[in-house]
Amino acid sequence: MDLLELMRRLQTRNKTKIVLLVADGLGGLAREPGGKTELETALTPNLDALAAKGVLGLITPVLPGITPGSGPGHLGLFGYDPLQFQIGRGVLEALGIDFHLGPDDVAARGNFCSIDGQGIISDRRAGRIAGDIGERLCAKLDKIKIPGVETFVRPVKEYRLVVVFRAPGLGGNVEDTDPQKEGLPPLDPVPRDPASQRTADAARQFLKSAREVLKDDFPANFLTLRGIDKLPHIPTFEEIYGLRAAAIAVYPMYRGLARLVSMNVLDAGTTLHEQMSRLEQAWSDFDFFFVHFKYTDSTGEDGEFDEKVKRIEQLDAAIPRVTALKPDVLIVTGDHSTPSRRRSHSWHPVPVLLSADTCRTDHCTRFGEAQCLGGGLGQFEAKHLMSLAMAHALRLEKFGA
Amino acid sequence: MDLLELMRRLQTRNKTKIVLLVADGLGGLAREPGGKTELETALTPNLDALAAKGVLGLITPVLPGITPGSGPGHLGLFGYDPLQFQIGRGVLEALGIDFHLGPDDVAARGNFCSIDGQGIISDRRAGRIAGDIGERLCAKLDKIKIPGVETFVRPVKEYRLVVVFRAPGLGGNVEDTDPQKEGLPPLDPVPRDPASQRTADAARQFLKSAREVLKDDFPANFLTLRGIDKLPHIPTFEEIYGLRAAAIAVYPMYRGLARLVSMNVLDAGTTLHEQMSRLEQAWSDFDFFFVHFKYTDSTGEDGEFDEKVKRIEQLDAAIPRVTALKPDVLIVTGDHSTPSRRRSHSWHPVPVLLSADTCRTDHCTRFGEAQCLGGGLGQFEAKHLMSLAMAHALRLEKFGA
Repeated sequence: MDLLELMRRLQTRNKTKIVLLVADGLGGLAREPGGKTELETALTPNLDALAAKGVLGLITPVLPGITPGSGPGHLGLFGYDPLQFQIGRGVLEALGIDFHLGPDDVAARGNFCSIDGQGIISDRRAGRIAGDIGERLCAKLDKIKIPGVETFVRPVKEYRLVVVFRAPGLGGNVEDTDPQKEGLPPLDPVPRDPASQRTADAARQFLKSAREVLKDDFPANFLTLRGIDKLPHIPTFEEIYGLRAAAIAVYPMYRGLARLVSMNVLDAGTTLHEQMSRLEQAWSDFDFFFVHFKYTDSTGEDGEFDEKVKRIEQLDAAIPRVTALKPDVLIVTGDHSTPSRRRSHSWHPVPVLLSADTCRTDHCTRFGEAQCLGGGLGQFEAKHLMSLAMAHALRLEKFGA
Repeated sequence: MDLLELMRRLQTRNKTKIVLLVADGLGGLAREPGGKTELETALTPNLDALAAKGVLGLITPVLPGITPGSGPGHLGLFGYDPLQFQIGRGVLEALGIDFHLGPDDVAARGNFCSIDGQGIISDRRAGRIAGDIGERLCAKLDKIKIPGVETFVRPVKEYRLVVVFRAPGLGGNVEDTDPQKEGLPPLDPVPRDPASQRTADAARQFLKSAREVLKDDFPANFLTLRGIDKLPHIPTFEEIYGLRAAAIAVYPMYRGLARLVSMNVLDAGTTLHEQMSRLEQAWSDFDFFFVHFKYTDSTGEDGEFDEKVKRIEQLDAAIPRVTALKPDVLIVTGDHSTPSRRRSHSWHPVPVLLSADTCRTDHCTRFGEAQCLGGGLGQFEAKHLMSLAMAHALRLEKFGA
């Protein structure tokens, strides 16, 4: 019996409430060996108070040594084995902008880019063009027609867009066209299986037209496609856990991830303050709240150690608004580590804090990687976190007689 | 290759002896956050001496967050993946009263209950009637005849009984008739697969007759059935480990669990003192001894923190009789936690102590949850405990060349 089936069988409903607060990329590294990480450097009196009452541990997002993207990182936190449920970036981006994907759809994440006279990419992000320019260019691209395949082009944010190909039987297995480096030409869309030949052909035709349509729009005079994929079948969060779940996330990607498991995606506003207000307003309507805080990741990706520390402190300052609601289970963690020293996602285990009346306390007094290492939860795969949340919410029946 | 196959392949025989002392429901919780658990409160000089020489750790009985029943709890300790080998309560109860189940048998755990004039359950345990009343009523029920299906009714203890349906081809997949709550009528036996339709029909006929037979026996004027199941196929303990194994357990359920994996079930008497005497007497006849101590669980289930502490101290006092036998490996642990604060089994990891000459000691000096958290065995799934026992007993060959 797999984990989801076990949860489905053991779950029971009651009035308890669970908050999963995800500080994206929370885990970090010290600047110097033996130094403090971003989380350990931050002054976090509220998180520390929770750590003292609750229990700490370290999460392995996928498996030891594996650096996850946002998709697997979050699916793991939601209790879905990220090796079993794999989701293309295109699908995530489409979900994140409320594009309703159907079974005939193949979605790709697009990036506007700059190409020179030889067709070589000089800027993979087209000078990070403003959102209104991206919107205007997407409207132009949306008019492209391909025989036999419907296409949709939608802006996401700045240089980012979504392209959807729609036709019965299109396969979702096509290689990225983004060469991942500047100084190279975009790649051709290559199918990875026979069922995706038509998809690759459609993408090739679309890109040919797009090059013509965008030729006078430097720096955004072309685009690359990646994460080309179809919607996978994923059992819903409510079906698995019996939880009415709400997602409060500012960024589309994370709303998309929540929608993928059929959480209710609420209007989160644009600031942590607004997210907290939304949490308060929605408190009586749901059992489970996924609250996503992006900036611990983005500051890490920018290599800004001090900024990441500040963002953690900003998150800490919001904690009293969460605890004032008296959740039965409050979990604070990340979907992966983003050490500012590495300027990218990493494989390092992620600190996790679980606060509930049913914790066996572990004498940790401070939320940080070093203390998490000795925490009562030990080190475990992220996919087990929801089982712990459910257990502490007293929402799981006994297994077996 | 699965774990059992690995053990089967690597096991080698020698003269070493292993004692697995299971204090049922051993793990606990402090009364207050930051306080001491039952085990930490108890004065356990003998266990502490073992802890100092040996190595400690924490066991996850099934998976994080999963609260196990006694069946999965013990199967895990015996090295069988409790998610792979699932056993109905009826089968366990039947094994525990020495009822020899065959391949044509379907066993159900029965509870005498009280029903009112409208057939509504007013007491799910029939006022916890005395054992002699239960025995007399079971004798009456045992006379019920159903066409084509042989039935057997046997008392277990107080209000508990076993009902066995015997006929070739009976399926073992029938829903419980216990509604789990008072104020509701008993449920009808519903088959979960076509092969169990006949079983459900037989159960329905049996219950109809039972209602008539018991109508003047208030408070035990009806019964419910649950854990309806057939004997699963489980490879024997001796086949897997090459150990001649003995079980010394006072309570039927645990003798039944031992019999399920084909251990030799010895007459354990009724006290820990008698169990120790039996262990001493049988010492030369077996390689492996499973000794089960019930009262750490029952006091926990009663919510009696101080009583659980006393029972742990009672167990500690018996340790010198075990160590006097000089077992090569002595393991003390539980099948799950039963914190008296929760008055039930729980999902919290279970303390484990392993003492052997081959331990890499871990500087723990006291057997308790907090020290176990820093113990040399770390946190691991219960199913790996037997591999460790076998290793320290020098009964496993090297894996691979």
